[in-house]
Amino acid sequence: MFTAETQIRVRYAETDQMGVVYHANYFAFFESARAEAIRQLGYTYANIEKMGVIMPVVDVHCRYIRPAKYDDLLTVKTILKELPVHHKIEFHQEVYNEENMLLVNGKIILYFMDAKEMKPTIMPVELLQKLQPYFI
Amino acid sequence: MFTAETQIRVRYAETDQMGVVYHANYFAFFESARAEAIRQLGYTYANIEKMGVIMPVVDVHCRYIRPAKYDDLLTVKTILKELPVHHKIEFHQEVYNEENMLLVNGKIILYFMDAKEMKPTIMPVELLQKLQPYFI
Amino acid sequence: MFTAETQIRVRYAETDQMGVVYHANYFAFFESARAEAIRQLGYTYANIEKMGVIMPVVDVHCRYIRPAKYDDLLTVKTILKELPVHHKIEFHQEVYNEENMLLVNGKIILYFMDAKEMKPTIMPVELLQKLQPYFI
Amino acid sequence: MFTAETQIRVRYAETDQMGVVYHANYFAFFESARAEAIRQLGYTYANIEKMGVIMPVVDVHCRYIRPAKYDDLLTVKTILKELPVHHKIEFHQEVYNEENMLLVNGKIILYFMDAKEMKPTIMPVELLQKLQPYFI
Repeated sequence: MFTAETQIRVRYAETDQMGVVYHANYFAFFESARAEAIRQLGYTYANIEKMGVIMPVVDVHCRYIRPAKYDDLLTVKTILKELPVHHKIEFHQEVYNEENMLLVNGKIILYFMDAKEMKPTIMPVELLQKLQPYFI
Repeated sequence: MFTAETQIRVRYAETDQMGVVYHANYFAFFESARAEAIRQLGYTYANIEKMGVIMPVVDVHCRYIRPAKYDDLLTVKTILKELPVHHKIEFHQEVYNEENMLLVNGKIILYFMDAKEMKPTIMPVELLQKLQPYFI
Repeated sequence: MFTAETQIRVRYAETDQMGVVYHANYFAFFESARAEAIRQLGYTYANIEKMGVIMPVVDVHCRYIRPAKYDDLLTVKTILKELPVHHKIEFHQEVYNEENMLLVNGKIILYFMDAKEMKPTIMPVELLQKLQPYFI
Repeated sequence: MFTAETQIRVRYAETDQMGVVYHANYFAFFESARAEAIRQLGYTYANIEKMGVIMPVVDVHCRYIRPAKYDDLLTVKTILKELPVHHKIEFHQEVYNEENMLLVNGKIILYFMDAKEMKPTIMPVELLQKLQPYFI
């Protein structure tokens, strides 16, 4: 299993008139946290795209338990429970507030796609090699 | 069953560097389509809030089948398969392009909450009365 | 002078915890209104990009006079006071509420850029021809 | 003069199909940078709101010189050249990339407003006291 954490400060732009973070904005938090997770492995999502591979999101599921508020310093956990199977990778993501209470959790499925051919492909080998030690 | 349709033109702001609509933005399309569905019943979500009731999103599930692109004129369907049970309401939503191909579908669960007490409540009676004829 | 109008319904996603439209979101309204203005001429911004021309925003100025609120049906005016000079085009844009009160006005300057060479270019001739009758 | 710096990593959500940061998103970067500037003084914008004061944006001007790209680590400078006059405060903000090149600069004017009365008011005294040493 590979786990990474990153912190995100809630912007005013991300709140709505209920006085909480608008539900769709957690997906940008998740995306940012996945990028930081890959960076912590010594790779970047930007590198993946430079290899000619894009990672469209194909399925999301998200549960909202408690609201996040303006200026909250959130901790976003990104969990990879297993290595990608073929072109599919599944991330579990959790958002905690400063009191370590779980606010939101989600499951995000992405595909590895060859950007030119727009066909499914596999994870770049360099990234796979960085992930493998966590799954022995 | 109650079904409503609305049309949404994709903005440049809603695309990302993959050249398609960023996945999180469909939730704003869904929200807009739910508001139009309620308006087609002769009520508004703004009215619901004026009654002291808010409707936080508590659970979303969304599948991305084909990408929407800049300037696409999308048709968003909002489907209510059953009347809300207590404080919970579940919408099915579908996004079609101009060729009537299904791009995205989602399921959104919201709660009716008393805004002052922040406790679960039920759908305002006026809205319930407008919905009931569709469920006989 | 060329003037066009379009209507935009405020989404919940576009509000912030002040209970009004977040200031940055008017720029997406302006963008949408410019696209509709071009469509009313019988052309589209999507066409411009298909001609290999992109139009980056290079300068914006915006004054916020009164707030727009959730579910407001806004009228956005797009005004072109003169034809573009070389690669530069300047739009004036105004946002009105349903009582026809001016909420926001802005001035947006964009460049015509050759997307491949990333060099300034001029407005596609087809669009220029559609605009010229308004400036005689 | 009071100057503060903060760093912001560009999210995929913030790019558009031109492959650069969508112009409106810099205003959220500016907002985030102003909040960090106030935090560096030992106060927070959230505190200001708790004092019953809100700070609506009333005027923005922004020039886009070079584009920011996905995953760029931006440095956003927030500069206060003078103490607020009555209810009005004016920030200068600049965005730099990792090569220390200026990408964007802006000027943002906000008002201090009494949130209950919706009338102009002055900066909370605690914040003023923290700022005054920079303007002697």
